[in-house]
Amino acid sequence: MRNKRGTLLILSGPSGAGKSTVIQAVMQRRENIYFSISCTTREPRPGEQHGVNYYYISNREFEQMIQEDAFLEYAGYVDHYYGTPRKAIEEHLSAGWDVILDIEVQGADIVRSKVPEAVSCFLIPPSFQELERRLHGRESESEEVIRGRLARAKEEYRQIPEYDYLVINDVAEQAAEEICAILQAAACRVSQRQEYIEGAI
Amino acid sequence: MRNKRGTLLILSGPSGAGKSTVIQAVMQRRENIYFSISCTTREPRPGEQHGVNYYYISNREFEQMIQEDAFLEYAGYVDHYYGTPRKAIEEHLSAGWDVILDIEVQGADIVRSKVPEAVSCFLIPPSFQELERRLHGRESESEEVIRGRLARAKEEYRQIPEYDYLVINDVAEQAAEEICAILQAAACRVSQRQEYIEGAI
Repeated sequence: MRNKRGTLLILSGPSGAGKSTVIQAVMQRRENIYFSISCTTREPRPGEQHGVNYYYISNREFEQMIQEDAFLEYAGYVDHYYGTPRKAIEEHLSAGWDVILDIEVQGADIVRSKVPEAVSCFLIPPSFQELERRLHGRESESEEVIRGRLARAKEEYRQIPEYDYLVINDVAEQAAEEICAILQAAACRVSQRQEYIEGAI
Repeated sequence: MRNKRGTLLILSGPSGAGKSTVIQAVMQRRENIYFSISCTTREPRPGEQHGVNYYYISNREFEQMIQEDAFLEYAGYVDHYYGTPRKAIEEHLSAGWDVILDIEVQGADIVRSKVPEAVSCFLIPPSFQELERRLHGRESESEEVIRGRLARAKEEYRQIPEYDYLVINDVAEQAAEEICAILQAAACRVSQRQEYIEGAI
């Protein structure tokens, strides 16, 4: 394998875009791909597992990691911290694996500035009406929560021009196929294949 | 189909890289893809066909087309003109077709400056030694011609950093698959999907 370093793929999208389903489909289609698991200080929700959905750590552990510069980016929301641990990402990229980072728009901005060769992709449903429909379909959430998510989604859509790619999640398998193509193309960038040029000229 | 405009793919590479074989394989894999046929004033070589390899036209016709700004780019080599006719490319792109342009490095430079959203791709064999081997394998060519081609290839390799992508033609089908991924990714660029954003915000 001559691509020494994998691609860091930043994936953002509003709540209701179907990121988890699409990411799972991408992971099944491609080999040597790692999904970055974030750290949080909030409690696991029912069904969530440590090391699968998040690493659930204490405030003290989180602040210790901040001190050690162990996060690629982190932020505090309401009462809790959320952060992207740097080490596992770096290890996988160095080993030639691609890494997917599911991250909101502000975090994406920070990662882009720290890792300029990262590729960024925004995932949305086929229309904003469809996003509304999907959010209303989640019966567990109140109308107020849904309105909040839609307002936030509108804010997030304004950041789409900062991204390289826009993938439409109508059918999850097709969206996954496009993301796989984006990863395959990213590995073909001239910047990733310098050794072929240096040897020749 | 919501991608209104196709992608213009600039494909360059030294003589011996295997461009024709790879292009054929790409055309077989993808639908709605058009290979741009150039105009030339040189005579057809044995086996070449008008409208397949080139459009063989007279000096007078060529100069008339220059007057009419009918070329996206053109150049004179030795005694003959070579040019890329603009109209068929524009028609196919407008209809949402991707267009492949097989063009050398100077022409690529001109097309890039005129069509900034074009995607450019350089095709090479796995090593320069392999390029030498392939060129020597063409028994019809003299040692002098081969030396000329290799010297020219070295010049062309220096232009690779101007390209977006570098595709290695070890196995033609794999190279074609990478080019298909590059085209699929290009269609996902945010700039190609503005209508999804404008509707929402």
